[in-house]
Amino acid sequence: MFKQLGVIGCGLMGGSFALAMKQAGLVEKVIGYSKSPSTTERARQMGVIDQAAESALLAVSGADIVLLAVPVSATEATFRAIRHLVNPNVLFMDVGSTKRDVIDAARRVLKERCTTFVPAHPIAGKELAGVQYADSQLYRDRQIILTPIDQTAPHMVDKARALWTALGCQVTTMTPEAHDAAFAAVSHFPHLIAFAYFAGILQQQESDEFLALAGPGFRDFTRIAASDPAVWRDILIANREEVLRQSERFRGALGALEQALRECKGEALEALIRGVSMARSQWRMGAQPPRRG
Amino acid sequence: MFKQLGVIGCGLMGGSFALAMKQAGLVEKVIGYSKSPSTTERARQMGVIDQAAESALLAVSGADIVLLAVPVSATEATFRAIRHLVNPNVLFMDVGSTKRDVIDAARRVLKERCTTFVPAHPIAGKELAGVQYADSQLYRDRQIILTPIDQTAPHMVDKARALWTALGCQVTTMTPEAHDAAFAAVSHFPHLIAFAYFAGILQQQESDEFLALAGPGFRDFTRIAASDPAVWRDILIANREEVLRQSERFRGALGALEQALRECKGEALEALIRGVSMARSQWRMGAQPPRRG
Repeated sequence: MFKQLGVIGCGLMGGSFALAMKQAGLVEKVIGYSKSPSTTERARQMGVIDQAAESALLAVSGADIVLLAVPVSATEATFRAIRHLVNPNVLFMDVGSTKRDVIDAARRVLKERCTTFVPAHPIAGKELAGVQYADSQLYRDRQIILTPIDQTAPHMVDKARALWTALGCQVTTMTPEAHDAAFAAVSHFPHLIAFAYFAGILQQQESDEFLALAGPGFRDFTRIAASDPAVWRDILIANREEVLRQSERFRGALGALEQALRECKGEALEALIRGVSMARSQWRMGAQPPRRG
Repeated sequence: MFKQLGVIGCGLMGGSFALAMKQAGLVEKVIGYSKSPSTTERARQMGVIDQAAESALLAVSGADIVLLAVPVSATEATFRAIRHLVNPNVLFMDVGSTKRDVIDAARRVLKERCTTFVPAHPIAGKELAGVQYADSQLYRDRQIILTPIDQTAPHMVDKARALWTALGCQVTTMTPEAHDAAFAAVSHFPHLIAFAYFAGILQQQESDEFLALAGPGFRDFTRIAASDPAVWRDILIANREEVLRQSERFRGALGALEQALRECKGEALEALIRGVSMARSQWRMGAQPPRRG
């Protein structure tokens, strides 16, 4: 399907994409570039990429598909580095968890060349960062959200959809605004809660004793608190308006529960919990994607 | 080790205890009672209990060990129902997630007979309630907290410790006060957060679309939101003072993160997340029980 894939950022996401593309026979050759030469070298030794490039621009040279898998805060600089080789025949995609900021950067830097850029967000990941955790199955059976804009070339969106479908993903298209609002609600804000909750535990004198007693509920609830600090700094700041909106709503719901507790209103408390418990019991991950692309 | 076990409340916790005791060869016969006759009958048909009792008192009659596994709000009434058969030769234990309220009820109802009652909290459970989910392995490799009081007979604490150790558990003893403070922090308050967070999602018009997009982070973060409403109503109300104290602390930590977001203070935000992420990455469940019993 493709001759040459250029991966900029050979970490968990970029490395896993390269492995998946190779395993599916969708690409002949993979050229990779990472800011850290040791990462690029490791990716090459692991067989994640076939050849190391010395710059982002050289990773794009000769490619007919390019994946940007750099930290969100490095997106604009990366666009600048490669813009001279961004042409209408090359499919460009990113894997960022926020879309409006990436699209703004693409518009600013690529200008009329941004027709070939298809913003993408795979709902996949691990708490473990780095190419050493790259996994050809990372994206299988997961959802991919594409957020094309008016300027995006429709045939590039079709190409992107076909590619991710071939990798075993469910593809959904949304507007960047709807995407950022939805993921603030179901992903970004829960991370903020988990960070705040764990920070609150660590601030207490008895934190070691508390942590030693914590069980499986705590383990699962706080799993996302182990996420990468730089990645989540960028995501939370990029999507801060929607995240803060979710936080306000959450504080309202928490306040209602606290009031029921303070006043020992068992029935009100149980009714609140029952609604949530039923909804959560019925929920299944990826059971009903809203608008399939 | 024991001749006859009386189980009052043949649900997930009581049923799993009966199965574990039988499988370990620690008891010859199990008599069970549940408020709902269909539960007792189901437990008998499943072989969880050998014989159904028609009342809590009859389940205690002839037993040398009794497990109370009823909802916390039913504890006092159950103590009343059985108090005439509470004698110094029978080990009584509960499995409640809060300890001060259960001990208060024991003191009020059993009075000087409460020497034989060893308050116990196994750190185990599932989101699924009911005897149909009873599992002989539920307690294996889990922590059990015993919270004896001044009046508790030391040889009964020894008996309880030996029993849970034989079932493959790590036994820790704590004061009821320290127990309730610690579990407010690592279990009860996280449930309150998860309920509030999920309620906040459900209140939004786009909740169906949001839920359809949620991924593995959301799945694990909200698993405890599916917990049993009546059980958690009781736990949260019984331990409300400690839970509300945790909530205040959490709101402070959340506020600090929100402020960093609002002011786009990337470094401060990253530093906060980094501390949490490292601590959570190093944490292992049950790795360092604080004071082994």
